[in-house]
Amino acid sequence: MTASISTIMASLAKCSQPGSGVTRLPFTDQHRQANAMITALMEKAGLHVSLDDAGTLVGRRQGPEGAPTLLMGSHQDSVRNGGRFDGAMGIILPILALTDLKDIELPFAVEVLAFPDEEGVRFPTTLIGSRAIAGSFDMDVLSYHDADGISLRQAMQSFGLKPDNIPQLDRRNSRILGFVEVHIEQGPILEDMNMPVGIVTSIAGVDRFTISITGVANHAGTIPMEKRKDALVAASEMVLAVNRLATESNGGKATVGQLGVFPNAVNVIPGQVDMTLDIRFDNDASRDQLGEDITTAMVAIAAEHGTEIVITKTYSQAVTPCDAVFREKLAEASRQVQPETIELSSGAFHDASAMADLCSVGMLFVRCREGISHHPDEMVEEEDMARAVEVLKRFLLDLDPDN
Amino acid sequence: MTASISTIMASLAKCSQPGSGVTRLPFTDQHRQANAMITALMEKAGLHVSLDDAGTLVGRRQGPEGAPTLLMGSHQDSVRNGGRFDGAMGIILPILALTDLKDIELPFAVEVLAFPDEEGVRFPTTLIGSRAIAGSFDMDVLSYHDADGISLRQAMQSFGLKPDNIPQLDRRNSRILGFVEVHIEQGPILEDMNMPVGIVTSIAGVDRFTISITGVANHAGTIPMEKRKDALVAASEMVLAVNRLATESNGGKATVGQLGVFPNAVNVIPGQVDMTLDIRFDNDASRDQLGEDITTAMVAIAAEHGTEIVITKTYSQAVTPCDAVFREKLAEASRQVQPETIELSSGAFHDASAMADLCSVGMLFVRCREGISHHPDEMVEEEDMARAVEVLKRFLLDLDPDN
Repeated sequence: MTASISTIMASLAKCSQPGSGVTRLPFTDQHRQANAMITALMEKAGLHVSLDDAGTLVGRRQGPEGAPTLLMGSHQDSVRNGGRFDGAMGIILPILALTDLKDIELPFAVEVLAFPDEEGVRFPTTLIGSRAIAGSFDMDVLSYHDADGISLRQAMQSFGLKPDNIPQLDRRNSRILGFVEVHIEQGPILEDMNMPVGIVTSIAGVDRFTISITGVANHAGTIPMEKRKDALVAASEMVLAVNRLATESNGGKATVGQLGVFPNAVNVIPGQVDMTLDIRFDNDASRDQLGEDITTAMVAIAAEHGTEIVITKTYSQAVTPCDAVFREKLAEASRQVQPETIELSSGAFHDASAMADLCSVGMLFVRCREGISHHPDEMVEEEDMARAVEVLKRFLLDLDPDN
Repeated sequence: MTASISTIMASLAKCSQPGSGVTRLPFTDQHRQANAMITALMEKAGLHVSLDDAGTLVGRRQGPEGAPTLLMGSHQDSVRNGGRFDGAMGIILPILALTDLKDIELPFAVEVLAFPDEEGVRFPTTLIGSRAIAGSFDMDVLSYHDADGISLRQAMQSFGLKPDNIPQLDRRNSRILGFVEVHIEQGPILEDMNMPVGIVTSIAGVDRFTISITGVANHAGTIPMEKRKDALVAASEMVLAVNRLATESNGGKATVGQLGVFPNAVNVIPGQVDMTLDIRFDNDASRDQLGEDITTAMVAIAAEHGTEIVITKTYSQAVTPCDAVFREKLAEASRQVQPETIELSSGAFHDASAMADLCSVGMLFVRCREGISHHPDEMVEEEDMARAVEVLKRFLLDLDPDN
């Protein structure tokens, strides 16, 4: 009798620092324990297992001579006190699909990749393993330090890796068929539609800004309301404008996630507010338009309140489209387990975002409970994971490397 | 030739920790230096000077035998990087008025009090000297510590005081005519009306609240706008309601001065916001009404956004009315220097707030530049200080202790 998928996920979740939920950071004992468990599952699937020098655990199944390789997988790490499905499920489900297909020949090689880091919790960088394979890893990052003063280079060396070999992991000159990632949705759409899986059309583009609003700090008891230049009143009107414009944008998302008030005293009118803005959309033109609408509104609001505003764009990433053939093949395969094909955009980044620099990417989302993730309550039902394995198997069986 | 008042204020401002503006905390070397300068000025005015065991420097001019005593004065301390007028001017101007009246007999005794602390910057308490005299000093406060771990008791002892004698400073069984405090307005009203001085009608009552709003923290990229329970969006609507209701209240002031967002990350929808609310009004019924209007609006806004709200009242102080006779006498005296009597309410606390527990209080506000205080740019013109001295002299000459 085979263990249920939920049992496997629960066992893997025990590779964690103490505390609620899962805390598994890259290049730690917990990472090593997780790799040992994943290695055993990979070997059971007949995969040849190796650890590359960026810390990605690679389980390879050979194909016919000269055939291209399909890459699959996701990240082994979690946020602090996170869930057991985010990342880990995208490693386990392909292994289980390949276990079932162990004795069936496929016209391509397959590798399941268990990337060391996607959450960026331990070091101020992310996507270490996928960037190494995509040829976009920046070697300067090796000198970044964690909160204990350990550099990424030291952490990797202690883990038994030779980080100086990372440039040799670049697969840009290999025959790669593409990268397919299974991931929990981390949102409520599939649950709302009562569908177990969905096909990702694209990974949303993102723009990030910092906004600094300067008014005049003064005594809360002595300045009449009409004489104030309250930076927090201006900022509050901006937060509402962000919310309203994103809601009206038909698909865009915009969030003020960080906000700080200065001097932040009960009896002082706020003189300055610094805040962040994160804008996402599944197409670049709409994201640009929403960003322009929001920043225009902010400038007008600042002026109405007699406050100064400085808006700085700190980050911008274009939409990552998913490959049309992968989408079509995943959609066909999904009809094995549900009556309709559900397509949706991913608002979050994934290893697929980095892998898109190397090859075509496809993503399959699995329904989660109440859209909760990055939390101990993160939950995917056994039945939905089993369905996703069926979809992957059908996808693998139908995929034609020459088309 | 006598030094200008501005020169005296500038000299006193040198009794400060290094840095911009004035930083003079109680029971420090800077306090000692300031007391030495004030003592010299008091002696020049013919006052008998002593330091009481709460740290109040007392300059006394005797009256006829058995006559009551008029108390005047303000606090010697400043906020960090504050101005040179807040507090200090209310000590110097009465001394200068009494210097001019040195050879004129008055039918009452006068004491000028230089209180050690009103700003509450060094220790988590305030109004030490005025509460001692008013008989409302809480001896438990002596065990409070400053940021260096020095207790108030230790600080007072190092300053040469015997804090155990504080209960003996209580003047409730003495014949006190009242307490009159001169202070910079710390607001823009007198400047706007082009008037050098104003008569304070009352010191505003204050209610303070903490407000905690709980929504649902989640991924900024994956949750559609219409599915969010964003605590910061709800809080922003509340900040605007506070501002609008206070503006419409005709004289009330309400301020959200502190606000914190959790988890406060660029890519996470805010799950919780904690903020403060400070409400002031020059009459208690209106303040109660404004508080009720605001909290009712907050509860409705929280519900509209599907968020939870907890509102806690943390502090409440009723209006302190100024004495009608003092108001009338100060108003008459002010007509020496300006055509009209200007009456206004004080939105800030003062030593007079504590002295009101002991006796009738009166306050004279002096115009400042652009309403700025608690800042190195705090400014009162020489001419306005000279006018205030004239008002005080006229007030002292006209005051009838039997009326």
